[in-house]
Amino acid sequence: MEICGYQFKEFLEKIKGFHGSTAPGIIIGGLMIDLAQRNLPPGEFFDVISETTACLPDAVQLLTSCTTGNGWLHLVDHGKFALTFFEKENGRGVRVFVDSAKMKKWGEVKAWYFKDKPKKEQDFDLLVRQMEEAGDGLFSLEEVTVNLEGFQKVKKGKTGYCPSCGEAYPLSHGKVCRRCAGDTPYLKV
Amino acid sequence: MEICGYQFKEFLEKIKGFHGSTAPGIIIGGLMIDLAQRNLPPGEFFDVISETTACLPDAVQLLTSCTTGNGWLHLVDHGKFALTFFEKENGRGVRVFVDSAKMKKWGEVKAWYFKDKPKKEQDFDLLVRQMEEAGDGLFSLEEVTVNLEGFQKVKKGKTGYCPSCGEAYPLSHGKVCRRCAGDTPYLKV
Repeated sequence: MEICGYQFKEFLEKIKGFHGSTAPGIIIGGLMIDLAQRNLPPGEFFDVISETTACLPDAVQLLTSCTTGNGWLHLVDHGKFALTFFEKENGRGVRVFVDSAKMKKWGEVKAWYFKDKPKKEQDFDLLVRQMEEAGDGLFSLEEVTVNLEGFQKVKKGKTGYCPSCGEAYPLSHGKVCRRCAGDTPYLKV
Repeated sequence: MEICGYQFKEFLEKIKGFHGSTAPGIIIGGLMIDLAQRNLPPGEFFDVISETTACLPDAVQLLTSCTTGNGWLHLVDHGKFALTFFEKENGRGVRVFVDSAKMKKWGEVKAWYFKDKPKKEQDFDLLVRQMEEAGDGLFSLEEVTVNLEGFQKVKKGKTGYCPSCGEAYPLSHGKVCRRCAGDTPYLKV
């Protein structure tokens, strides 16, 4: 079986190299991407929405040209294993999602997805084998049109020096940079 | 010159393969990561904060074990080329940031960073050469302590079936999934 041009085992190695472990969520993501790419609507340039922040974004980054840093991968925090490839200009897209009804046939996949048993009781090899055997069989497809308003690249605009800290920042953020305005991830120590 | 164990030219190839183009923001990101890793506080496991959503996250994903999908890469949308490696348990970290004062010595880097001239007038080869020559010379370091409250992994909790669409979703999201509750990236057509 091939996933986006990679042999299945080769894909598992790629996952480990990038993500740090052979996460089942990325394996299933690879299957979803392969299916989506065989069912794209007409168009040349596609962005991707991942409807979960866990694992699935890394499958997208490994197998498509859409990454966090180039802005073509978008996250929607719905906690769902679903992803949408959509044409940038008109928003027409295909959504691939894990179909709960279809999953019932694959017990170990269902147990993993629904956390029916603790991780240490899950059979990883069986899980991977079931995913490989299931292939497209875990998913359904849906035609969607994306509301492009929420996914436009915002131009950063002019860059200037923050009068408070001296660092460069987007002037559109205000009179001082966001950190100096109090929105900081760091503690005062 | 080496960046995190890669020869400079090899790193440029890696960037293109992952990000789609040899984005200057990722080259400079590589230099920042290399510097940060030589100045880590004591500790074993580090997460990374990128203070911009553009380009820099991809440098982190290429050169460290922190990715969007494994949750060890965090984005703070401050529009700043700055990144922080912090120890997961105690929040102690090192922040590397582009130092405006130091950048003045490198005209093409400054022109690119501040968009002093349009992209087509920028000299890409000179820009890359200046980055390579500058090495650590574009940055300063700052010891920080991260407010860990903002960067804890949120457990998804139990998964169930949405009574409206039938898809699996985190029950903590409410009685129906977020999409069925009206928070959707898709248009009704």
